[in-house]
Amino acid sequence: MNIVLLSGGSGKRLWPLSNDIRSKQFIKIFKKPGPENEYESMVQRVYRQIKQIDADAMVTIATSKTQVSAIHNQLGENVGISVEPCRRDTFPAIALATAYLHDVQGVSEEETVVVCPVDPYVDDAYFDALKKLGEQAEKGEANLVLMGVEPTYPSEKYGYIVPVSKEPTSMVETFKEKPDMETAKTYIAQGALWNGGVFAYRLKYVLQRAHELIDFTDYHDLYAKYDTLKKISFDYAVVEKEPKIQVQRFAGEWKDLGTWNTLTEAMEEETIGEAILNNNCENVHVVNELDVPILCMGLKDVVVSASPEGILVSDKEQSSYIKPFVDKLDGQIMFAEKSWGSYRVLDIEDDSITVKVTLNPGHKMNYHSHERRDEIWNVISGEGVVIIDGVQRAVKAGDVVTMKAGCKHTIIATTEIKVIEVQIGKEISVHDKQKYELAI
Amino acid sequence: MNIVLLSGGSGKRLWPLSNDIRSKQFIKIFKKPGPENEYESMVQRVYRQIKQIDADAMVTIATSKTQVSAIHNQLGENVGISVEPCRRDTFPAIALATAYLHDVQGVSEEETVVVCPVDPYVDDAYFDALKKLGEQAEKGEANLVLMGVEPTYPSEKYGYIVPVSKEPTSMVETFKEKPDMETAKTYIAQGALWNGGVFAYRLKYVLQRAHELIDFTDYHDLYAKYDTLKKISFDYAVVEKEPKIQVQRFAGEWKDLGTWNTLTEAMEEETIGEAILNNNCENVHVVNELDVPILCMGLKDVVVSASPEGILVSDKEQSSYIKPFVDKLDGQIMFAEKSWGSYRVLDIEDDSITVKVTLNPGHKMNYHSHERRDEIWNVISGEGVVIIDGVQRAVKAGDVVTMKAGCKHTIIATTEIKVIEVQIGKEISVHDKQKYELAI
Repeated sequence: MNIVLLSGGSGKRLWPLSNDIRSKQFIKIFKKPGPENEYESMVQRVYRQIKQIDADAMVTIATSKTQVSAIHNQLGENVGISVEPCRRDTFPAIALATAYLHDVQGVSEEETVVVCPVDPYVDDAYFDALKKLGEQAEKGEANLVLMGVEPTYPSEKYGYIVPVSKEPTSMVETFKEKPDMETAKTYIAQGALWNGGVFAYRLKYVLQRAHELIDFTDYHDLYAKYDTLKKISFDYAVVEKEPKIQVQRFAGEWKDLGTWNTLTEAMEEETIGEAILNNNCENVHVVNELDVPILCMGLKDVVVSASPEGILVSDKEQSSYIKPFVDKLDGQIMFAEKSWGSYRVLDIEDDSITVKVTLNPGHKMNYHSHERRDEIWNVISGEGVVIIDGVQRAVKAGDVVTMKAGCKHTIIATTEIKVIEVQIGKEISVHDKQKYELAI
Repeated sequence: MNIVLLSGGSGKRLWPLSNDIRSKQFIKIFKKPGPENEYESMVQRVYRQIKQIDADAMVTIATSKTQVSAIHNQLGENVGISVEPCRRDTFPAIALATAYLHDVQGVSEEETVVVCPVDPYVDDAYFDALKKLGEQAEKGEANLVLMGVEPTYPSEKYGYIVPVSKEPTSMVETFKEKPDMETAKTYIAQGALWNGGVFAYRLKYVLQRAHELIDFTDYHDLYAKYDTLKKISFDYAVVEKEPKIQVQRFAGEWKDLGTWNTLTEAMEEETIGEAILNNNCENVHVVNELDVPILCMGLKDVVVSASPEGILVSDKEQSSYIKPFVDKLDGQIMFAEKSWGSYRVLDIEDDSITVKVTLNPGHKMNYHSHERRDEIWNVISGEGVVIIDGVQRAVKAGDVVTMKAGCKHTIIATTEIKVIEVQIGKEISVHDKQKYELAI
């Protein structure tokens, strides 16, 4: 089975846990199965679930450059990634991922591909349904086979699929845009299903559509001209023009965890992280990524979330409306997961920033320099090697490395290594960074 | 006028802004008069108000050792402090402060002393009332003159004073313990007044009582044997046994800001620090000492407070009951104001702690060493002089000083100087500190 997971853009609706560089799918908020008290993200959960159902499934994540580090950090190095050089909506993204499967991974034109979003909260039945979706597409009765989710309420958030019959597999009669609640009720009465953006096709079908709409030779050519492509959705470019579409009904658990309100419904416990709720709290959830406790007293229907980026305290209902407020916050990114580890800003002063950098064993930073700031590394744990203007030196906890502006530097982690990096200079900026090839 | 301000113990009721070493009276939460957006603490507010009414007033703060640094930090070096070597309740504390006025400050036995708590929220009329209280005590018609606050509601939190008449100044008929609400109503109907713990006396009166109850020669002797004294309240030791007591009525603003609920009533603005409230918030107050924003959505009757110690989100009514929950938190002290400046813990790892230290110009740390940890100073702003094992060296932003365990060290601020201090070692503890005399 070839699965393409669409990993969407920055998610401000789950601020302060998501931000410009950490999308909601990377927040570790779901309890992992097993005795340890460990948590996994949406991406990790869905990837684990796929691999449990089908260990040989080829999973490709279609995403933007900004997420590549986080994906490798959370899923390891072996996952396939189709990187969009820039955002061009779903049709170019799916065309690129399909070309990637064909030209890079060597998947044949006859094989089926199942595309689904990376962020629904689902159980194992969903993955069985994905498998059936692929098998149905393989039959070639239709060019596209969609998953239709049995509605549980007249939602205004989804498009609707109207099937010809109520059979488990049916031809699609028509599609409906996101309706208001009353219209949604009439759709449901007619047997319409939610369109969750899950569908299967034979590889050659989408490749052919792509060649019809875009002038390109192969994956590498498509990648190279990606920024010249028109923004267009897969629905608009393909689905609406295709007469031969089937839908398969799905009645299992399927939740879109796009807001704090829906996300907390999927939490197994009231609190994640250090938190105390008194007995007068009712329907309160706390997600705390800070090292200090949160004390909640006498709250009702409230979600509290704290991260190095900020603190949200919201009525659950109202939590759907945070985006415009978060858009106005343009603070420094305080925390990021990278392919090599993570960093966290500890302190910001006028002419200095203090950061904790954690490098995973065997990983290294880019070899780089800054024009406008000096840096000091205070190694607080672990062992590694630094390269300063070409000179190697082993370092361990307690060692200090000073780097003047202009000096080229990197650190390579032997074990996990943690460093307090003190940056000193006027107008410190993430853009003040020159990268170099490392000749080792 | 001699005023003794009683500055009480650790205030967990205003956690996370107050903690074991920062009492509520030191939280900067009141807007200063004037165009700048500056805040002052209860101590600063009351001290400023006294000095405005009477620039020559001799103010002595009776407090414990742990608060001396914070008082100097907030009020400067010139304020008189009567330091209790340990806590022994109000009678020994007032006796010690009275002996301090007599033996250290040279106040004559005939002069009057006005004692009041440091933390009520009052306006200028209160200080006029204090002055009248002192003038009345000077007349010698009674041995004690109490302030009786006109009740605004049948409070269960205060003791009541029953005056003989409803004249502005009256002899006291009797005192009543804190009543329940129904009893409070009957007291008020009888013309009883709140006992706010404010009173005046001629110095010799309390000195005489002290000599009757405690065997001591002078202030220094009393100070030396302070830890052997019995804990006893001023009310029990003096007030209840004294027949000649007068009360003066006071009808001005007088608020006891002991809980978040009452404190927020005295706040001039909804928010202090970085905070956003949407329009659906109602009766919400935010006090944010962190560098990141707090976003509140659709909350009602809630107080949110965040500091380096933790985050409180509480229904206002319920905020009176936080103490038992806060008592259970026994985290590291994350922030402190010292006479020389302040420190803030930025990061805690198993074998390292990172701290930002700010030294005020002209101030220095103790000359000290640690047995079980190395330290690294990263100077991030300002200029100063370090002394490392007796060797002086000038330092400025960008300089690094490394200190192995056992090495004696201090830093002296020329300008304000800020240092990122990285501590590395097993079992880092505040108790691992040896102090030395500095031979300069």
